[in-house]
Amino acid sequence: MAKPSAREGILSTTRIEMFSDAVFAIAATLLVLQLDLPRLPENATDAQLWDALWQVAPSYFSLVLSFAVIGRYWLAHHALFHRIRKADGGLATLNLLLLLTVVVLPFPTEVLGAYGDLAAAAIFYAASISAIGLAMWLLWRHAVKRNLLYPDVSKRTIKNSYYRSLSVPVVFLASIPVTAWVGVSAGELMWLALFFIGFFLKPDDARTH
Amino acid sequence: MAKPSAREGILSTTRIEMFSDAVFAIAATLLVLQLDLPRLPENATDAQLWDALWQVAPSYFSLVLSFAVIGRYWLAHHALFHRIRKADGGLATLNLLLLLTVVVLPFPTEVLGAYGDLAAAAIFYAASISAIGLAMWLLWRHAVKRNLLYPDVSKRTIKNSYYRSLSVPVVFLASIPVTAWVGVSAGELMWLALFFIGFFLKPDDARTH
Amino acid sequence: MAKPSAREGILSTTRIEMFSDAVFAIAATLLVLQLDLPRLPENATDAQLWDALWQVAPSYFSLVLSFAVIGRYWLAHHALFHRIRKADGGLATLNLLLLLTVVVLPFPTEVLGAYGDLAAAAIFYAASISAIGLAMWLLWRHAVKRNLLYPDVSKRTIKNSYYRSLSVPVVFLASIPVTAWVGVSAGELMWLALFFIGFFLKPDDARTH
Amino acid sequence: MAKPSAREGILSTTRIEMFSDAVFAIAATLLVLQLDLPRLPENATDAQLWDALWQVAPSYFSLVLSFAVIGRYWLAHHALFHRIRKADGGLATLNLLLLLTVVVLPFPTEVLGAYGDLAAAAIFYAASISAIGLAMWLLWRHAVKRNLLYPDVSKRTIKNSYYRSLSVPVVFLASIPVTAWVGVSAGELMWLALFFIGFFLKPDDARTH
Repeated sequence: MAKPSAREGILSTTRIEMFSDAVFAIAATLLVLQLDLPRLPENATDAQLWDALWQVAPSYFSLVLSFAVIGRYWLAHHALFHRIRKADGGLATLNLLLLLTVVVLPFPTEVLGAYGDLAAAAIFYAASISAIGLAMWLLWRHAVKRNLLYPDVSKRTIKNSYYRSLSVPVVFLASIPVTAWVGVSAGELMWLALFFIGFFLKPDDARTH
Repeated sequence: MAKPSAREGILSTTRIEMFSDAVFAIAATLLVLQLDLPRLPENATDAQLWDALWQVAPSYFSLVLSFAVIGRYWLAHHALFHRIRKADGGLATLNLLLLLTVVVLPFPTEVLGAYGDLAAAAIFYAASISAIGLAMWLLWRHAVKRNLLYPDVSKRTIKNSYYRSLSVPVVFLASIPVTAWVGVSAGELMWLALFFIGFFLKPDDARTH
Repeated sequence: MAKPSAREGILSTTRIEMFSDAVFAIAATLLVLQLDLPRLPENATDAQLWDALWQVAPSYFSLVLSFAVIGRYWLAHHALFHRIRKADGGLATLNLLLLLTVVVLPFPTEVLGAYGDLAAAAIFYAASISAIGLAMWLLWRHAVKRNLLYPDVSKRTIKNSYYRSLSVPVVFLASIPVTAWVGVSAGELMWLALFFIGFFLKPDDARTH
Repeated sequence: MAKPSAREGILSTTRIEMFSDAVFAIAATLLVLQLDLPRLPENATDAQLWDALWQVAPSYFSLVLSFAVIGRYWLAHHALFHRIRKADGGLATLNLLLLLTVVVLPFPTEVLGAYGDLAAAAIFYAASISAIGLAMWLLWRHAVKRNLLYPDVSKRTIKNSYYRSLSVPVVFLASIPVTAWVGVSAGELMWLALFFIGFFLKPDDARTH
């Protein structure tokens, strides 16, 4: 990591990427703190502990979901910065906005784990996930508008990235009325559908070479 | 990241920067832990959960404020280290002092989120933010006094950095009597004013190339 | 850390390694959060505090065990990535799966520390550790199947790595019936045996040059 | 960060250093979590909040002390690894032992903050700090014994490092009987004395070039 010369910018894209990597990694790891140790009476039996652990299962589910979301956006973040030639102040600010949406994710995850059968929890979670996708899209749009990408990035890659950034918010926002009027499980099935579709389509975001 | 040769110093500026980056990133991410899951009765309704989430809103506000402060000082920290040619023991020590002021920030943030309508919380928060700015100024002053900057750093850049480092403490310290005698909202409006002014002035700290 | 050229893949193995390093480091450090400060009455005596600290001892034990496990897998992770020539999407996904098993570890560690005399806690812990080993083995197998290793990695190294990845799940899964039918202490002794054997055999994973 | 060639060892010293840096940074930042938000009644007054914040002051003091200790050992860790030519398995293991002593520090810090007027808390804290110094000394001794240092490291540097590694445990262990028989304040004054002496002697550990 050579000292950037006076010619280069103050804040290199590498520096922004490393800071973002750290925030993604920490947010992903903090998710475990929502798993609350079941309080048992003094001479608890095995059956009581199994029962208590079983009650934590919904929190495990929401942890895995949020971990997958953070992992996916981490990959998408790299796919973007891989194509960014230089940074500007707006990019740094929008990137902080994206990181803010990632940083708060453990809270809706905890709410979903604890109250996953309430529509309010599912809607709050869906809105939080959508915020990440919208921030990602703002970041792409800024990079395109301000001509910060490498010149060999194709129009198709940009269009695909727009679609992909917005697909998560679209599905999650669409799940909100479904959750409210059809039911919580129906809304949550929509989220899972997104992941399976995402894995089968082998998106370019996850392409690693 | 080549092994520094025996000729170079024991602690490179790059090493200090990376450690600082990690501390900034972790402190920013730990802010989420102050968002406390609302405890609801066994068969809570959607209305009860919405209400509980709404009560968390002030904590979201203080989280966003502290995240913006940490993000801004992270940028300012890079703007400084970008211009530092070599480190000395005093710089390492003052940098640890700066990091200490950043590390404790989640606590006043939590207090502000929980008791934001009390002057004591606002004053405590303002003092904590001011400490970061003062530490930043001490770091700049040390680098200038001990001739640790690159020779091509202009007097104007240094003067601007002094002003900018001190502007945050000045506004936040000025908000303390306003908070105490005019009211908490008046003091908090002064903080917001600072951010908007900061964004419109497009400070050099946020310049990325 | 040079910007990868357009020729290289979007996600370099170095990038995956650094993200993984951060997750391992954070998960290892978060283990401390399970050490709960004993709540004592207002005018507690030294004897009461010593007693309370002594009650935390099982949590220290489980922390040390999990820290050793994470440290060992961190070394094994490097031994693998040291031999990986290039990454693909499957490797990135399986690596996220491995990190997920590491991220959740503080929770079973806390359960083991609090209820280590219950078979349920020991079995839950053993299953959680086994998941890490299985994910590690899946990662090795994928790298071999998809030809992602350097060509000079010997068949013997691969076979040894398979054995070593699976040895931890085998011992920990084998401890489950022992724990259930012989007793918790017998099962926990099996875990310790693994570590001592591991240290005496000086496994290649820990070889650093 | 070039991929190490097949000729080099599996675990480079740089890799160990970066992992250690992350653990030091996270442990230092987690210290803030021991600052517990004072629970106040519904319509608390400013006076009540000031009072509650004042009760947190001892925790601030122990946080600052532990932050200084971690910062100092981070510098000492670099001073060591700056002189290490190559790593071996024992160094990696002893380094993990050192990191373990750092990772657990937030717990004794919390105990000291909450029960600093009890000898038990001060002794527990002193023993925890001493463990870091002893692990540091073991690391130095291993590097010397196994000939892992650069050949140009002088005997005097090694002797100084031994003295310095052991000076912290010596003072902290010596504070234990003082704490037990003279009083808690006398023992804590001994710790502070160490820091002031350390700062005035300008130890080589803090020398940055």
